[in-house]
Amino acid sequence: MTIERTGLTPRWCDAAAFNGIVFLAGHVAEETQGAALAEQTAEVLALLEETLEMAGSGKERLLSVQIFLTDIGKIAEMNAVWDAWVAPGQAPARATVQAALAKPGYAIEITAVAAKRVA
Amino acid sequence: MTIERTGLTPRWCDAAAFNGIVFLAGHVAEETQGAALAEQTAEVLALLEETLEMAGSGKERLLSVQIFLTDIGKIAEMNAVWDAWVAPGQAPARATVQAALAKPGYAIEITAVAAKRVA
Amino acid sequence: MTIERTGLTPRWCDAAAFNGIVFLAGHVAEETQGAALAEQTAEVLALLEETLEMAGSGKERLLSVQIFLTDIGKIAEMNAVWDAWVAPGQAPARATVQAALAKPGYAIEITAVAAKRVA
Repeated sequence: MTIERTGLTPRWCDAAAFNGIVFLAGHVAEETQGAALAEQTAEVLALLEETLEMAGSGKERLLSVQIFLTDIGKIAEMNAVWDAWVAPGQAPARATVQAALAKPGYAIEITAVAAKRVA
Repeated sequence: MTIERTGLTPRWCDAAAFNGIVFLAGHVAEETQGAALAEQTAEVLALLEETLEMAGSGKERLLSVQIFLTDIGKIAEMNAVWDAWVAPGQAPARATVQAALAKPGYAIEITAVAAKRVA
Repeated sequence: MTIERTGLTPRWCDAAAFNGIVFLAGHVAEETQGAALAEQTAEVLALLEETLEMAGSGKERLLSVQIFLTDIGKIAEMNAVWDAWVAPGQAPARATVQAALAKPGYAIEITAVAAKRVA
């Protein structure tokens, strides 16, 4: 069975789909790097949604999400943006922990696993 | 194909199952928050087992487990509880790293992926 | 459906395969523990490849990779080794964050999910 890769570069892809399940890369802020966590969260969730759609899935099909914050003390700020974004009645299994990220301006990185819409 | 969500709240679910595979949320101590790592590990593993059963799986069907400890130096303390809990002959792929967690009293958070019993 | 476990010990297995998907344990350096990140990365990727092959998969079938570095500031050093190793045109979804690891000599730990070759 074939693996479908979305947003493929020599180093990584944005998403790899196999057997109806889509595995997403860690998504980080591009435009809002260095901005407040709420702004970065909004951008990262928008990018995640874009990747999900490109891969034949959507936010209502999320199975699992892992969130890395550089400052876990600000989790409420992230949750406020998350709560407004997540598909009602379709919230995924989620874990949020603290970790330093690849660039100093990053406040959040999100990875996810989702089901394709037609699987 | 339908996604089955267990323990669904507006923000997350405890487990999301699709195509025979169950993705579990990060589980943390509820009763033993602030207690020693061994106690919290025992509670978190019991909660994890409860979620697995609710989702039609069980600890003998674990595929992958990720463990976050706030103090990786205490990994032996966690391992002692883990070794007594894990299903003999059915140990999952496991990774354990250090991370600060959502509440100051948390010493451990565990996420997992498992196979359903009837898949 | 049966779960196939590779490199099984009482505490964990190196890989657990189910329904065509292989979940790998966190791999760390055995020989090069304490050495520079580039050396450890090369060893860990070699070990990962070995596990993938044992489990009926291969690096060209990687879906998702999670990399933990004890010093995220050295990510470029890891990327150089990664770029030379990854299967051309088959790069997986990837996330890299900083975390303290189980032994002081470890500079890197890698977990992965892959598709079996014949699924």
